[in-house]
Amino acid sequence: MPELQKPYVLFLGDVPDALAAKTATGIVDWRPEWCIGQVRLEGCKADTGLPDMTIAEATAKGARTFVIGAVNAGGVLPDHWVASIVEAIEAGLDVASGLHARLQDIPAIAKAAEGNSATLHNVRHVEQTLSTGSGAKRPGMRVLAVGTDCSVGKKYTALALERGMTARGMKASFRATGQTGVLISGRGLAIDSVIADFISGAAEWISPANEPDHWDVIEGQGSLFHPSFAGVTMGLLHGSQPDAFIVCHEPTRTTMRGVTTPLPSIQDVIDATIAMGRLTNAAIQCTGIAINTAALDESEARDLLAKTGNAHKLPATDPVRFGVDALVDALEEMSPKP
Amino acid sequence: MPELQKPYVLFLGDVPDALAAKTATGIVDWRPEWCIGQVRLEGCKADTGLPDMTIAEATAKGARTFVIGAVNAGGVLPDHWVASIVEAIEAGLDVASGLHARLQDIPAIAKAAEGNSATLHNVRHVEQTLSTGSGAKRPGMRVLAVGTDCSVGKKYTALALERGMTARGMKASFRATGQTGVLISGRGLAIDSVIADFISGAAEWISPANEPDHWDVIEGQGSLFHPSFAGVTMGLLHGSQPDAFIVCHEPTRTTMRGVTTPLPSIQDVIDATIAMGRLTNAAIQCTGIAINTAALDESEARDLLAKTGNAHKLPATDPVRFGVDALVDALEEMSPKP
Repeated sequence: MPELQKPYVLFLGDVPDALAAKTATGIVDWRPEWCIGQVRLEGCKADTGLPDMTIAEATAKGARTFVIGAVNAGGVLPDHWVASIVEAIEAGLDVASGLHARLQDIPAIAKAAEGNSATLHNVRHVEQTLSTGSGAKRPGMRVLAVGTDCSVGKKYTALALERGMTARGMKASFRATGQTGVLISGRGLAIDSVIADFISGAAEWISPANEPDHWDVIEGQGSLFHPSFAGVTMGLLHGSQPDAFIVCHEPTRTTMRGVTTPLPSIQDVIDATIAMGRLTNAAIQCTGIAINTAALDESEARDLLAKTGNAHKLPATDPVRFGVDALVDALEEMSPKP
Repeated sequence: MPELQKPYVLFLGDVPDALAAKTATGIVDWRPEWCIGQVRLEGCKADTGLPDMTIAEATAKGARTFVIGAVNAGGVLPDHWVASIVEAIEAGLDVASGLHARLQDIPAIAKAAEGNSATLHNVRHVEQTLSTGSGAKRPGMRVLAVGTDCSVGKKYTALALERGMTARGMKASFRATGQTGVLISGRGLAIDSVIADFISGAAEWISPANEPDHWDVIEGQGSLFHPSFAGVTMGLLHGSQPDAFIVCHEPTRTTMRGVTTPLPSIQDVIDATIAMGRLTNAAIQCTGIAINTAALDESEARDLLAKTGNAHKLPATDPVRFGVDALVDALEEMSPKP
């Protein structure tokens, strides 16, 4: 996928609540400097806090890409959203979408894009040609967020690590492997959407060779213990060849998301990630634990983190509640010294 | 994919050697009862041993599917092959192809198929809708061929097991996971061609619920230790939820096919397959070893098999050279008794 052109203007449509616009909110949280405004239709109940503007105003302020930052019920693109997308294309913008439908499958959008040479980014669809993974070690440092399950905070952890590392002057780049991550980073691909033969090859493309002291902070997907998605997790692990990984965990969950399989322990995930990951990086090590403690009160959260950290002799934190300093310390210590 | 209609007539084109027609040869080796003849163009140097016939003769003898059983150099479909395919469609046959190009992407073929309501089977392309894997245990027994590498005899071992098991009156079905296997079995799909999210779901579809004493003999793919393809292997393992597995190995290879990664040991493969496979079947066990001894003379082969079998306390054989009786014995012993 070609890189998304910045800055963005975020389209929220007329969604009925804030949750339906969480893609837009995520982009504003992590890349406020790329977002010049929001376009909302009458009745929209979501709000990113960005200035409201028309498409014409956004273009006048220099917007380059119209990002569909909301999903309506059912995930289908309603007709009155199509009109806004066509207007954006005719105003000279590219369009990026994380919806299931491909933008060019809607004739009015395809026609407008062709007439205006607009690029349509379907971040859920992988349209580029990939190679199979080579397994060869490439320069640069890499840290991968892995999980005891899906949806346990891997993307948040990776983005928070990138922010914490760059704040200390370390060279770090968030590497997206899911559709929201791609919109946040402007690059990457939804690795669960590639043809199975190319999973590790896609991961190698996502995180290319870099300077020896540069860190790629790679968004994880699924879990080695999730019976639906472990193949994706495995290929992502092999292609990422991480030097370090962080285990992300949600402490109140008892079964894996969407299935009845019991949750693995944090130690299970550490052991399996090292056992499988050393195929492409013999030095792979776990450097920390990130726990989503939203369901616990503050003292319970602190107790759990202290207990978990001691049990594994690793820094443990809730990145949302207590920041990622302890995790960054460990990575900074691993960085090659000049 | 809908099941392929039998019987087949095999198209060899005008390939310059026997190797280029190995798909056709494989079908004749394993499903002679489905094959009524071969269609060859002038200059063809391959021969399956089936009677030569024209497309009209094949149709008169009851052929239902025209199977492209050869690949020309470059894998592209040459124009003069297209003419034969169109003739077959116009004679009322379906067409099956394991080539990279989709049949309907060639306008003459698409047009003929539409006009004659022919089904075009592109076995390298997965066109059906799949679900993500559920991880739920389903009835029936399953044995999976796994490998220390790609191309170590997994398909051959699975087909030989099916033949050996049915010869003893056991209920057994070969389950194809690659394009040649699909043409041999008339069903299945190329699991490395599905979207990554659906690998284990595809494996669940390939090997559906069955009678308690029925064995699915599942063709393996890749290796848990191959840095390009381990994601496919992992998803296939989880979706197959095998009760038993056979490790397939080629003893002269030192690095994994296509990459520089060293070959794992048989014990490495046994340990990792059990560690990962118990997620969906806690009772998973290794029941035998299949070694391709083609590079060794007979006494070396017998020595290696005896040594390997003793070291692992498992039956070890070369299915091509010495048959699969020892492997079938172990599976028969595991079968639920009525």
